[in-house]
Amino acid sequence: MPTPDPAVAEVRLAVRTALASLPEPPRAVVIGLSGGADSLALAAATAFEARRAGVEVVSVTVDHGLQEGSDAQAARAAETARSLGIRALVEPVEVRDADGDGLEAAARDARYAALRTVAQAERAPVLLGHTLDDQAETVLLGLARGSGAASLQGMARVRTDPDDTVWLRPLLAVRRTTTRAACAAQGLEFWDDPHNDDPRFARVRARSRVLPVMEEELGPGIAEALARTAEQLREDAEAFDEMIHETIEDIVEHAEAGISISASALAANPAALRNRIIRLVVDSEFGASLTRRQTIEVARLVTDWSGQGPIDLPGCRAQRRGGRIEITARP
Amino acid sequence: MPTPDPAVAEVRLAVRTALASLPEPPRAVVIGLSGGADSLALAAATAFEARRAGVEVVSVTVDHGLQEGSDAQAARAAETARSLGIRALVEPVEVRDADGDGLEAAARDARYAALRTVAQAERAPVLLGHTLDDQAETVLLGLARGSGAASLQGMARVRTDPDDTVWLRPLLAVRRTTTRAACAAQGLEFWDDPHNDDPRFARVRARSRVLPVMEEELGPGIAEALARTAEQLREDAEAFDEMIHETIEDIVEHAEAGISISASALAANPAALRNRIIRLVVDSEFGASLTRRQTIEVARLVTDWSGQGPIDLPGCRAQRRGGRIEITARP
Repeated sequence: MPTPDPAVAEVRLAVRTALASLPEPPRAVVIGLSGGADSLALAAATAFEARRAGVEVVSVTVDHGLQEGSDAQAARAAETARSLGIRALVEPVEVRDADGDGLEAAARDARYAALRTVAQAERAPVLLGHTLDDQAETVLLGLARGSGAASLQGMARVRTDPDDTVWLRPLLAVRRTTTRAACAAQGLEFWDDPHNDDPRFARVRARSRVLPVMEEELGPGIAEALARTAEQLREDAEAFDEMIHETIEDIVEHAEAGISISASALAANPAALRNRIIRLVVDSEFGASLTRRQTIEVARLVTDWSGQGPIDLPGCRAQRRGGRIEITARP
Repeated sequence: MPTPDPAVAEVRLAVRTALASLPEPPRAVVIGLSGGADSLALAAATAFEARRAGVEVVSVTVDHGLQEGSDAQAARAAETARSLGIRALVEPVEVRDADGDGLEAAARDARYAALRTVAQAERAPVLLGHTLDDQAETVLLGLARGSGAASLQGMARVRTDPDDTVWLRPLLAVRRTTTRAACAAQGLEFWDDPHNDDPRFARVRARSRVLPVMEEELGPGIAEALARTAEQLREDAEAFDEMIHETIEDIVEHAEAGISISASALAANPAALRNRIIRLVVDSEFGASLTRRQTIEVARLVTDWSGQGPIDLPGCRAQRRGGRIEITARP
């Protein structure tokens, strides 16, 4: 048997490791296939690994219908997948910016919904082609938002949704140069989405203008450093989540017009947990995302109590009453 | 009484808040005074606030003797401080790169040692002039190292050393432009250290080449975002430290040739704590700082145990023996 190209071997190993991390071998896997180098290298490696493991591979190429000729491009990607022995689907979607979050966000929502539908029908996990470079860009964009650990933890290697859809990102430790090399070594023609060079998108600017400067002035290895940071911060966030879910039911009480939290319990927790509990309660009860400044002002009802009055927050208000912090809808 | 300039008022408020955060009013405070805009604005604000609070102010200007005329520059800074009613000391130090960590690090060590000596003699906390911009640069440099939350938490607002020396950084939320404006408004001539423009230093490149690009492409507000991130990650780190110190004595045992950790206790902890415990034990016992990859390999003796052999680490080795992870000096 000939030795595979090193890039091909690296992508295959990443896929094999990801599939082995599942609690049990899946009957089938679904691949989100744009036709770009990342998802095409992922598809080829998955086809190879799945054949050895007796797992069916289904690819889904979503035609967003936003660019001239997108249907032909989607058909080409599916054709390439079929040449790899993959059952390749093309799913046309209608993208409408109903929430006003922008067309990019609407396209992403439509894409994930289409992938989810197939995953549910096949009862199969979804494999996504995000690479280490995508992860580094995500961290950098989160950093610019500055909302702390939550925005720096990047994309999850594995995530299970409440509806049991499992999303895997096997290539989060693989460089984009490797996926391109793997495609080239296998003679796979990939598609370069022109959106990937459009500087109207912050992600494109992060990739093409910010990361190269960081690499030159502070690097090398900045992309790997950002990805490593994401991995560790995700672990941290999971630990805090676990701790909070262990304690929150004991310290939070529902009342007629809102919710209240025990002041002494908040005081006994370190600031990292106290602030997270406050944010979580306000978010889950009133759907509002507090800034750090707002969160700390609420925390001061406990840490620095001197009889201060109610604090107005988005959609609600917080005040201290005796031994509790009450958070109620604004009158 | 005339209203002070807004920049002057902002620096004074920052100093007042920092002094009020001390458990009791100090008899005196020590200021690290380079003569640059940051430390000079800090000195002026502290002189103003301290006079109202009856606190003596001592400034220490360290003459590192590394640049032509550094003695005259130090004398000028002290003279300016005296004009503000401050008892101004000049401390010449000899900087030698004994550890091979570079002259910058040696100069910093010598400077902090000189400040510590005065702080001990005066039994006074030390106030340092680091601004929000310094904090943002520190986070960016930590990000480039990619050692996770520990390298992103920046500088502490307040820190107490084992010898009880207290270090305060009142200006961590104040912009550098504000300290310059405050100096200008008070007619204080500050010194621009030519080192601050020397691109041989990574910090200078972070300031002059990386942050402006990030601000332009991803900003505005990138410096504030980085500083906010540091603040939250520091909270997180403190919470983890607290949890670890509550549990570590119960799960770690000293043995003849090293130390051992209970495998079941490590397994029961979330990854964020498990990995921190492993790093802490190896660091405190063998003075070695594990990479993330090494740490995770040790953790796999617990999370993914399949009879693997000993793991060689810097200065020590880890292996599983029954229900414990043993870490011993390398033979």
